[in-house]
Amino acid sequence: MSTESEPPKVQEEVDSSSQSISKKAAKKEAAKKAKEERRKEAEAAASAASALSIEEEGPLANNYGDVPLQELQSVNDPQTGKWSEAVSGREWTEVGALNGSLKDQEVLIRGRVHTTRPVGNKLAFVVVRERVSTVQCLATVKPDSVSKEMVRFVRSLSNESIVDVIGVVSVPDVEIKGATQQVEVQIKKLYCVSRAAKTPITIEDASRSEAEIEKASKEGVQLPRVNQDTRLNNRVIDIRTLANQGIFRIQSQVGNIFRQFLLSENFVEIHTPKLIAGSSEGGSAVFRLDYKGQSACLAQSPQLHKQMSICGDFGRVFETGPVFRAEDSYTHRHLCEFTGLDVEMEIKKHYSEVMDIVDCLFVTIFDSLNNVCKKELEAVAKQYPFEPLKYKPKTLRLTFEEGVQMLKDAGVEIDPLGDLNTESERKLGQLVLEKYGTEFYILHRYPLAVRPFYTMPCHDNSLYSNSFDVFIRGEEIISGAQRIHIPEFLAERAQACGIDVKTISTYIDSFRYGAPPHGGFGVGLERVVMLFCGLNNIRKTSLYPRDPLRIAP
Amino acid sequence: MSTESEPPKVQEEVDSSSQSISKKAAKKEAAKKAKEERRKEAEAAASAASALSIEEEGPLANNYGDVPLQELQSVNDPQTGKWSEAVSGREWTEVGALNGSLKDQEVLIRGRVHTTRPVGNKLAFVVVRERVSTVQCLATVKPDSVSKEMVRFVRSLSNESIVDVIGVVSVPDVEIKGATQQVEVQIKKLYCVSRAAKTPITIEDASRSEAEIEKASKEGVQLPRVNQDTRLNNRVIDIRTLANQGIFRIQSQVGNIFRQFLLSENFVEIHTPKLIAGSSEGGSAVFRLDYKGQSACLAQSPQLHKQMSICGDFGRVFETGPVFRAEDSYTHRHLCEFTGLDVEMEIKKHYSEVMDIVDCLFVTIFDSLNNVCKKELEAVAKQYPFEPLKYKPKTLRLTFEEGVQMLKDAGVEIDPLGDLNTESERKLGQLVLEKYGTEFYILHRYPLAVRPFYTMPCHDNSLYSNSFDVFIRGEEIISGAQRIHIPEFLAERAQACGIDVKTISTYIDSFRYGAPPHGGFGVGLERVVMLFCGLNNIRKTSLYPRDPLRIAP
Repeated sequence: MSTESEPPKVQEEVDSSSQSISKKAAKKEAAKKAKEERRKEAEAAASAASALSIEEEGPLANNYGDVPLQELQSVNDPQTGKWSEAVSGREWTEVGALNGSLKDQEVLIRGRVHTTRPVGNKLAFVVVRERVSTVQCLATVKPDSVSKEMVRFVRSLSNESIVDVIGVVSVPDVEIKGATQQVEVQIKKLYCVSRAAKTPITIEDASRSEAEIEKASKEGVQLPRVNQDTRLNNRVIDIRTLANQGIFRIQSQVGNIFRQFLLSENFVEIHTPKLIAGSSEGGSAVFRLDYKGQSACLAQSPQLHKQMSICGDFGRVFETGPVFRAEDSYTHRHLCEFTGLDVEMEIKKHYSEVMDIVDCLFVTIFDSLNNVCKKELEAVAKQYPFEPLKYKPKTLRLTFEEGVQMLKDAGVEIDPLGDLNTESERKLGQLVLEKYGTEFYILHRYPLAVRPFYTMPCHDNSLYSNSFDVFIRGEEIISGAQRIHIPEFLAERAQACGIDVKTISTYIDSFRYGAPPHGGFGVGLERVVMLFCGLNNIRKTSLYPRDPLRIAP
Repeated sequence: MSTESEPPKVQEEVDSSSQSISKKAAKKEAAKKAKEERRKEAEAAASAASALSIEEEGPLANNYGDVPLQELQSVNDPQTGKWSEAVSGREWTEVGALNGSLKDQEVLIRGRVHTTRPVGNKLAFVVVRERVSTVQCLATVKPDSVSKEMVRFVRSLSNESIVDVIGVVSVPDVEIKGATQQVEVQIKKLYCVSRAAKTPITIEDASRSEAEIEKASKEGVQLPRVNQDTRLNNRVIDIRTLANQGIFRIQSQVGNIFRQFLLSENFVEIHTPKLIAGSSEGGSAVFRLDYKGQSACLAQSPQLHKQMSICGDFGRVFETGPVFRAEDSYTHRHLCEFTGLDVEMEIKKHYSEVMDIVDCLFVTIFDSLNNVCKKELEAVAKQYPFEPLKYKPKTLRLTFEEGVQMLKDAGVEIDPLGDLNTESERKLGQLVLEKYGTEFYILHRYPLAVRPFYTMPCHDNSLYSNSFDVFIRGEEIISGAQRIHIPEFLAERAQACGIDVKTISTYIDSFRYGAPPHGGFGVGLERVVMLFCGLNNIRKTSLYPRDPLRIAP
């Protein structure tokens, strides 16, 4: 388990290291107090609830109440107890599966109390939510099933509590606006499985779009805006929103299609070590640690090991796994730990073979998201509106020189043998969209000087290299290249780049025993999801993000 | 890149920390020298080769030689050059696809020189290997295509060099014993793409089974035995063996089926952070590091975060990713870094729902391996013979009490409320095999005292818990349980287990805002492959293993 630690605030794009210690300490103290209070509230709520549930005696008293722990487990070898009696033989229906075809049937559902609304003494509405679906349930006093006390119990349920509801499906004449399912459940029995303490943020607030807040503001109503940091500090509640349920299902699908496509193209999945001897790619940007008395670091990429696997005759390999960067980057697109999608493959003739894979792979991913994740994409767009990504069935490829010319023609002067900065990448994205109608394209033949030493130079012009970057909506998501597979040449290039060849001899030696021409690329999973959905911050697509100021929860 | 580091020797099951420093230093020095010599050899070989290839002038001189780097890249915009001329328009045929249906056709193949054999001056055999397939190729002097010099060039090729061969497929009358493909290629042209230095271990030696060594020994011949450490030090060569090509393709398939099965059961794939604040599960067995000034460690399991994801309404989640254990375990079954397959899910009624998933999941994996990986399993069995795993379509479940009784009946006395040690686990595996005919079974209702504090006790007897282990061939591969989802009860259990509740408050707080009953399990990918294939060491199923003495390559 992680020990308690108050996560420090992240200010986007800004270094907050100037924040004074005493201020931090005060905040910490305040946070602790608030936590303690929440805990007390929770205990009070729990005891109040159990008090309520034993208030009534009589034939209807068994139709509701908190489920004691024993009864949650007593189904398979039943003992006496109202819950097991009520529930044991039944199957749960998913909230998302409730529809008119179930009219007049009795169902059992489990979900969270999304909201409750009392109407007088004899009626209570409770909207029950299961993942992305919600259904309106009604408890009305009825002589044979629902007592006044039961309605009171239903009204007492705190939001986010988990309940089992047994009731009859009905189809109202009017549209139900406050729930996804267009049926109601007439409650006969209701049991609370887990009672929630008062949440520090509400799902309603956390689900609100910027447009809604602004619209209300124009009408003079200030609706709460839950900022990124508060969300992340309360991630276990925040990820329950419709948008987040969508984002992480989309992420799961990207990983799935990535692998399915590559497996179908005869790639082998590998798992390379994250614990690396020495100090990785010579950089300051690695996390260092002590490994049984040896100095070690966390892998910044599986570069060395995926190339070794090609030299080890796997032909085509891929890996999905964590990648660690200790960089002090406080931007909207950098994390200290992210999920790398890495590919490496033998090249038979030309590095365009690698770009062919990128092309088909990503078009397949995009097509699949648009087909399979419609509901999830709608959920995301509802809170964070975005235009569907514009891409072509066959991905546009431009050379770096062509890109530079386009920028030049548009009046942007850049070094033709230097790298593109974020701004010129964005500008080029715009130009490409205007000229070619796509927001997804490959830029290749980068200047050799701006690529790592192991990048293969172009045979016809050694100022350029067999390398490429791939862009979505003007932002880079993929970097790839043909690698140098000839050890002597690799050493020569390392030296030319000012690298001490001795420090990378393990790497160079990997190519001494016969190495096929090969290349590959790396993608950040979180960036793919962020840019496909047009989101503004990579922290939105990382389940538990890590950045220079955040290592919790 | 990893910096150079001589990996220390691993002695299985033995602590070698007593090895003297001076001895180590001497070894290191010797290794360095050997390395330097290998490098020189390689350079000599390379220059000898290029000398050879320019020796001849005449019409046949273009039919062979080393391919210069430029020519390897000059295909898409051709320049003059013998390789591009010979190869540019062609497609490669996979060695594994060579069969009688291609008789008399000209093919182009790329592969490694597995072996060469000269016969007089005018004939040379070369066996070309691509991944798991080999084919016999012949270079015979012919006036219109193959010169004497060319035959000499073919004979000069070092093993493991990579070549492009153009030739005509023929079908000999007799069985070919030295290659997998039952055709021959009559060489017309042959180009060396990458020349290999003399390898420190040969594929032939590394591919030999223990039985072959013993058989030869009885006949008075001492064949080299490549030990585990030498293999791992030269992994880039070692993984080229048929058995290793099989092992890691099987591993890839296990991961694939694991995910496909779970996705089809509505699980969502998640990626949880490996960088954790504080010191993880309170243990000494964590790798610690400095995270931007905060103390941090590497996750020993995704336990906290997968449970948080359930509290965050993902319903059912899984993850495949690295897991870090700093334990000083020198056994055949422990690694410091391995690939964890983790599952967590809501439980509706009973923890048997989790065992149902384990049951179907693993039977699906085993069935799929037996169906899809026949060739790979044969490759492994050829070097490391094993009996196919015995398992049932519906997995056997025994309670811990039943297991204890079986051991008791067999005369093994063990503490009925203690844990099983490795020896009694093995013994029970034997007894179960004899009685039920299966080597794969689930043992559940473990004593509460031997499980982590967050394990849900049995409702009918709090000496036992809703937990299970799963065994293959008498060794544990899976641990799982229902977790306590009630924060107050969790705190109580932590306290009872002597854990300072304050240190795990983040964990406990995750359950305060409504938590569904849930459970899950974790599996080690390398163990699954090791035990399915009956291998004797987990280092055989980890591509680049990490143990207390090894952090390279």
